[in-house]
Amino acid sequence: MALVTISDIRAAASLIAPAVVRTPLLRFDDRLSVKPESLQPVGAFKIRGAYHALARLSDEVRARGVVAYSSGNHAQAVAFAAHAFGVPAVIVVPENAPAVKVAATRAWGASVELVPMAERESRAHELVDSLGATLIPPFDHPDVIAGQGTVGLEIVADQPKVDVVLVPVSGGGLISGVAAAVKALRPAARVVGVEPELAADAAESLRAGELVGWPAAERERTSADGLRAEPSELTFAHMRAYVDDVVTVSEDEIAGAVRRLARDLRLVVEPSGAVAVAAYLQRAEEWPARTVAIVSGGNVDPEVFARMI
Amino acid sequence: MALVTISDIRAAASLIAPAVVRTPLLRFDDRLSVKPESLQPVGAFKIRGAYHALARLSDEVRARGVVAYSSGNHAQAVAFAAHAFGVPAVIVVPENAPAVKVAATRAWGASVELVPMAERESRAHELVDSLGATLIPPFDHPDVIAGQGTVGLEIVADQPKVDVVLVPVSGGGLISGVAAAVKALRPAARVVGVEPELAADAAESLRAGELVGWPAAERERTSADGLRAEPSELTFAHMRAYVDDVVTVSEDEIAGAVRRLARDLRLVVEPSGAVAVAAYLQRAEEWPARTVAIVSGGNVDPEVFARMI
Repeated sequence: MALVTISDIRAAASLIAPAVVRTPLLRFDDRLSVKPESLQPVGAFKIRGAYHALARLSDEVRARGVVAYSSGNHAQAVAFAAHAFGVPAVIVVPENAPAVKVAATRAWGASVELVPMAERESRAHELVDSLGATLIPPFDHPDVIAGQGTVGLEIVADQPKVDVVLVPVSGGGLISGVAAAVKALRPAARVVGVEPELAADAAESLRAGELVGWPAAERERTSADGLRAEPSELTFAHMRAYVDDVVTVSEDEIAGAVRRLARDLRLVVEPSGAVAVAAYLQRAEEWPARTVAIVSGGNVDPEVFARMI
Repeated sequence: MALVTISDIRAAASLIAPAVVRTPLLRFDDRLSVKPESLQPVGAFKIRGAYHALARLSDEVRARGVVAYSSGNHAQAVAFAAHAFGVPAVIVVPENAPAVKVAATRAWGASVELVPMAERESRAHELVDSLGATLIPPFDHPDVIAGQGTVGLEIVADQPKVDVVLVPVSGGGLISGVAAAVKALRPAARVVGVEPELAADAAESLRAGELVGWPAAERERTSADGLRAEPSELTFAHMRAYVDDVVTVSEDEIAGAVRRLARDLRLVVEPSGAVAVAAYLQRAEEWPARTVAIVSGGNVDPEVFARMI
């Protein structure tokens, strides 16, 4: 299986530059720096992969529009990217999605189709067929992975001697791209994934050497609602090639990291976005001197956030 | 009176680069971008001026230590800068200062002296005399103003066609430096100060053409506790030369801006830090297409912040 290369990621960086924020590294303490992707438009790194996937389409294909199925940050990222390119987007969302997320997606001019959870994927494929539109998957695509990899490019540019990069893992698009970039530019650095204990399928898969599925009902127990997806064959291949380890954090550790990020770095971070910092705090004295944690997103209900800090 | 020049500010930018975060501009809506200085170490732009003031001292003078009197962000900025240079710092703090702020200042290794409010200044001068240390004022010094001016340098670098820069005003150090930079690099841009209605002494002074003092008891009514100082002759001279207007915002408008910054840009911002965005929101349709608001700081009590969002 062909893996995304550092030149794919460099090319992605030029294509997405107009749309993404060049996030700085923020010093958390003597050892840890944080890469705050919560500061991106739409509040998550997802804009990098989605915008890149659209940028890579021919003008003609892109003009027929794009389709995504997601209730989370990917939906908003595709809607934002389609708005930026001036092309139509249809986002297929489960009926029980939070109204605020639906509103945020509509705010970028996308049409939102509410369907029963089980019909999301089939409805998205119907739309692709009937509109001639292009499906933009949340992680299972080389262009999406290359876009997310630009986070790794920026980390090494700002911290050339980085020792460890801690990365949240869900479907694995972010860690696939970041690991490909970091291992190419700084082979001595370790790339470590982080999952909630309650959705630790990637950790188990990596240990087993093959994809081990966890039932959706189990993965849905975690408060980190952005980390409930499973890796694909493509992202798992990147993880086997480039990722050194995947560690897990408890729900309490996630909440503690949200709180510390609010108080110490003045960031509004969603639970999913805080897991890498939670992994650092779990054994802060054991991580090496130049550790970087990716804070992947900040789309959290304000009432929930207010209770956590 | 000699005003700070663009070359002073460029020189400051090189000196402070190792210590400050190169903050990005974050897009708030179609017209407004935000400069999030809440992301600096110590959570406020104050690190720029304080670090620059220390960097400009000779090694010999700096080694004798520095003194500041402040209970706010300047205290932490001087403590941080002294720690970075490995020199002693004594911060004179009023006895009624919040314990969290005292703890944050001590965390950078500074000694904190608690004295009655009225004795702050005299005690600081005693320390300067007895220790041979250098007083680092919060705004009334050209090196501090030049350091704060680097915010303006970065705004024009990132948005060369900026039309308006909105800047919080208290003692006037930030707006003095920012206005000197912006007017040198982009003379067509307007620089507009923002004050709380309840501490609008700079607005009144600029209209009167001379410094008009407001009693401290009046200025202390605003929730924007970082905006209760008054301009000095030096900062007022910069304001008369370079600032186009100073507008005011209500307490409700300040709270609304804190809320919007949390929800839309995922930033933890203190009331003082949100006034420039409050001024934008007051009449959003009237500001021109390329408006930039400086978010000056994010040191807010988490319980207070949780109630505001």
